[in-house]
Amino acid sequence: MPTSHMIPVHLRWGDEDKYGHVNNVVFFRLLEEARARWITGANAHDNLLTRGLLVHEAALTYNAPLHYREAPVVVELTVTKIGGASIDIDCRVLDNDDPHSTCFASGRIRLVAYDFDTEAPRRLSPADRQWLEA
Amino acid sequence: MPTSHMIPVHLRWGDEDKYGHVNNVVFFRLLEEARARWITGANAHDNLLTRGLLVHEAALTYNAPLHYREAPVVVELTVTKIGGASIDIDCRVLDNDDPHSTCFASGRIRLVAYDFDTEAPRRLSPADRQWLEA
Amino acid sequence: MPTSHMIPVHLRWGDEDKYGHVNNVVFFRLLEEARARWITGANAHDNLLTRGLLVHEAALTYNAPLHYREAPVVVELTVTKIGGASIDIDCRVLDNDDPHSTCFASGRIRLVAYDFDTEAPRRLSPADRQWLEA
Amino acid sequence: MPTSHMIPVHLRWGDEDKYGHVNNVVFFRLLEEARARWITGANAHDNLLTRGLLVHEAALTYNAPLHYREAPVVVELTVTKIGGASIDIDCRVLDNDDPHSTCFASGRIRLVAYDFDTEAPRRLSPADRQWLEA
Repeated sequence: MPTSHMIPVHLRWGDEDKYGHVNNVVFFRLLEEARARWITGANAHDNLLTRGLLVHEAALTYNAPLHYREAPVVVELTVTKIGGASIDIDCRVLDNDDPHSTCFASGRIRLVAYDFDTEAPRRLSPADRQWLEA
Repeated sequence: MPTSHMIPVHLRWGDEDKYGHVNNVVFFRLLEEARARWITGANAHDNLLTRGLLVHEAALTYNAPLHYREAPVVVELTVTKIGGASIDIDCRVLDNDDPHSTCFASGRIRLVAYDFDTEAPRRLSPADRQWLEA
Repeated sequence: MPTSHMIPVHLRWGDEDKYGHVNNVVFFRLLEEARARWITGANAHDNLLTRGLLVHEAALTYNAPLHYREAPVVVELTVTKIGGASIDIDCRVLDNDDPHSTCFASGRIRLVAYDFDTEAPRRLSPADRQWLEA
Repeated sequence: MPTSHMIPVHLRWGDEDKYGHVNNVVFFRLLEEARARWITGANAHDNLLTRGLLVHEAALTYNAPLHYREAPVVVELTVTKIGGASIDIDCRVLDNDDPHSTCFASGRIRLVAYDFDTEAPRRLSPADRQWLEA
């Protein structure tokens, strides 16, 4: 059963748009930041990081308005499928680290492992898979 | 058969990320900008604008890397479904105004007509529908 | 002698530009965020917040490249002058909460208290001044 | 007498902040974009571009609120001083290409020619100077 990673991400005042809500585009920025903190954090497996990851698909459904505040939101990342070169991640933007707290938005990201030197996707290594399944 | 709207949107140097590509998050900003220009442009039907529209769903698949350049990209917007309060729009980010030109990313946005005064979705009016179907 | 406020601000991966540095424009976003956290934080004096503040002048000199990292930078804010309607703030972006740590950029912001209802600057009240001098 | 370059830059709906103004931070993004279009445009001298330019100082004074609109603003760039490795540029964000039109913000940028390979400033070449003075 897949493990979920709960990553706090701080909002910025400038994330709100003219409507006084955290802008819908910014939610994808929050997901990017959560991935960066997960992949480059204390337990990072740096092969994934140093060799490059591209976003191939991104989708979100917005459930509730989010407003700027001091406390971070918590982005829940759950790896649901590991393909030859791709990684599917379910994403939820939550009010706090309780998975039953308000979910402002939920969706899915598909990453592709990419080699910038050869400019081509690359197969995930056994070490990559082991780290992703941890 | 639905009409497509071809909206030029200018890139910014700052849209590129560390990888030297227009960042995946920024593509949703390009879609937002295309919608803003379509909805607030010369032929605008201002009821839609002044009474508010929220993004309920957003999804993109990335097909080819996009780099900063002087010439605008062209965002193709096609209204595919008009619900009671919702509008589904197919979106493509194209190299130029030829619909067969390189498609950097394609996806779908669902908007919901929203009344900020009552803080609730509102039914699209006959005038809204007429404008959306034009 | 003016008090300095040390405000941690988290970086985002997307703050880096094509050159692999936190982009110079983003530093002004970090200053904005530090001001927002100072003014809206636990000890906030909400008159200042609710009645509006505009940036009238902004200036930074960049001293050292800043790279994305997990740990926040610390923005030091020092109120140096309180005018009839204006507030001058010296700003430094530091490596950590030691004021002698690496200073990535330093500069100055002039804010003007503004009343959005009357669309005019407003005089700072005695309560505003007291809070600013604390 | 220095030449001024008038560079149209398009706004984005997302440039407005919660206050319904183009955000003060975004003005520095507009300046960056104007520089990019000037330096990489049709008459570009690519030595400057390919070998790197860093922003060393940036300052703006805000004179009038700017709102999102279809028409681009015009950024006026005037090279006022060329040092050994530095370039001082007066910047104004104008309503249109008439230099007497509304000036939303004005200020100054100091760029430094930088060699990313040696990670050090580099002396501007005679060809650089000739292009900058044109």
